[in-house]
Amino acid sequence: MSYELLVEVTRNSTVESRHYGAAVVCDFKGNVVESWGDIESLVFPRSALKPMLAIHLVESGASDQYALSDAELSLACSSHQGEMMHQNLVASWLNRLGLTEEHLACGAVLPEHTESAHELLASGQHGCRLHHNCSGKHTGFLTTALHLDITLDNYHLVEHPLQQLSLEILSDLAGINLKQYPMGIDGCGLPAPTMPLLQLGLATARFANPRELSDTRAQAIYRLHEAITNEPLYIAGHGSVVSELNEVTKGAVLAKTGAEGVVTAALPERGLGIAVKIVDGSSRARSVALLAILDHLGALNDEEKQQLQTHIAPTIVNSRGLTVGEIRPAKSWLKKISSG
Amino acid sequence: MSYELLVEVTRNSTVESRHYGAAVVCDFKGNVVESWGDIESLVFPRSALKPMLAIHLVESGASDQYALSDAELSLACSSHQGEMMHQNLVASWLNRLGLTEEHLACGAVLPEHTESAHELLASGQHGCRLHHNCSGKHTGFLTTALHLDITLDNYHLVEHPLQQLSLEILSDLAGINLKQYPMGIDGCGLPAPTMPLLQLGLATARFANPRELSDTRAQAIYRLHEAITNEPLYIAGHGSVVSELNEVTKGAVLAKTGAEGVVTAALPERGLGIAVKIVDGSSRARSVALLAILDHLGALNDEEKQQLQTHIAPTIVNSRGLTVGEIRPAKSWLKKISSG
Repeated sequence: MSYELLVEVTRNSTVESRHYGAAVVCDFKGNVVESWGDIESLVFPRSALKPMLAIHLVESGASDQYALSDAELSLACSSHQGEMMHQNLVASWLNRLGLTEEHLACGAVLPEHTESAHELLASGQHGCRLHHNCSGKHTGFLTTALHLDITLDNYHLVEHPLQQLSLEILSDLAGINLKQYPMGIDGCGLPAPTMPLLQLGLATARFANPRELSDTRAQAIYRLHEAITNEPLYIAGHGSVVSELNEVTKGAVLAKTGAEGVVTAALPERGLGIAVKIVDGSSRARSVALLAILDHLGALNDEEKQQLQTHIAPTIVNSRGLTVGEIRPAKSWLKKISSG
Repeated sequence: MSYELLVEVTRNSTVESRHYGAAVVCDFKGNVVESWGDIESLVFPRSALKPMLAIHLVESGASDQYALSDAELSLACSSHQGEMMHQNLVASWLNRLGLTEEHLACGAVLPEHTESAHELLASGQHGCRLHHNCSGKHTGFLTTALHLDITLDNYHLVEHPLQQLSLEILSDLAGINLKQYPMGIDGCGLPAPTMPLLQLGLATARFANPRELSDTRAQAIYRLHEAITNEPLYIAGHGSVVSELNEVTKGAVLAKTGAEGVVTAALPERGLGIAVKIVDGSSRARSVALLAILDHLGALNDEEKQQLQTHIAPTIVNSRGLTVGEIRPAKSWLKKISSG
């Protein structure tokens, strides 16, 4: 098995569980700067593609026509946690389009944000489509469809012109034709493309610095950088590693998670893209691995690291409130990357 | 890395995530029947030890003194889901002892059973100690302490005579002195011992057929077999793989999960013990791996397999209600074990 032991979960300093995976750092010119584990295997980037899936919204002119705010554009790139702020913004955006929740193709779910879900249940309510972490992305698709006067019917299916357009944009960034790769269906019903992890790293680097892309595409990407940087809480939510990384680094690190252990980070100033896949699909390991790579690249200063401490070295607290373990970069890997 | 690829998670037939691990099948005489991956590495068996941790309750005479029912003994061995039936039985048992929820050392949590947790929240209530999946085990410890007239104070700490007794019983079954191995603290506050996976398999085999142990210990174990077999819903809960395996096989397979990807199964009639550790700690993979091993051993007939289908080959359903993937034994491993 050609994966690297990236993250260890300990209990009283004995390792209890181990997370293997692969990671790559690319530059916007298409070079691999560094890599660990097998980066040629196919991954489903899932929601890590969302910022790239929002390019159509700006590029098509839809964003200008509907005067989308920074918060709305950030939400279009988001896996939001379903907090009240997210839910309200999706609802008002849909309303401005003359649409309702019923137009969203994603299913009804409870918010991922635990407190928000509990409050909802305690007030006698249920999950709805607005709470789905993808509802901002879906609203983005509906906005572009209205602007381009394309049918909204089955906008989530791979045959729909908007999904075909999205695959073309993603292919441009990844440098391969994604239509020739296996395709799945995502949790929200949209197509879930695959690509080698390497191509996800390259696409992320080109999103970080789009100079090699067409000017229109580059301008759209710069607009998204600006929106996410100005409204980091709309791309994920309170307490999330994505929002806090974006906020603490003031947009120097634009991270995005994807389901099943994927996380990416675009570093606009340095023109770098990082892509990580935890092979077992674990959420708890991906951000620990990403933060270790960012530290290794010197992308975080001491103050930033202090602010991100709960994500860099999460502790495991038991039901009695006692710290009983931690999640940390694997010592063997740290040794390798710190001497590298 | 010396783990076996045990379980694959697919999306539209492309593998999205992979779960590695190790597994062992032992007999009660101390032989390894079969194994996959590294079985010498230390694991925290966590709640997989609970049926063995209930032996003191019967062996000490506490179970007889307090006339514990089959359901209460099954609950003492349980990681229950916090359904109303579990919560009520812990409460009435504590009441019979003259104790209350406040005597339990485990912390307050929401039930693990989603519907039960949602109902609780919808009715304006919060999680409590009774809902903790370990509350039956804790009530068992309190029962033995009362019976033996040992202090209840700090009964959860490793220094307490009951925890020392438990470690001796576990060491007897595992065939090693667990006090010489690293120790952690569990989610509920009790000591969390470690042992090589091999020893967990051996201990499980001796729990399956305790003939090589002392007569008193063997009788206590037979009593626990009977209780779990008669009340399978009290050792876990509705829809759980543990309760359904125990129920469907009428006690021929006594399974028990442990946190962080552990599962064991004792096969009393065959005197076999199976222990599985998914190296990344995943819950979704452990039961799929266990069921593949049970099938490989011919421990399940066609009717039983049909009844257990949702655990043998779980599907992944998205928010739109569409089946988009599955969790299955890795093809490479299946090939190995079916030709073995």
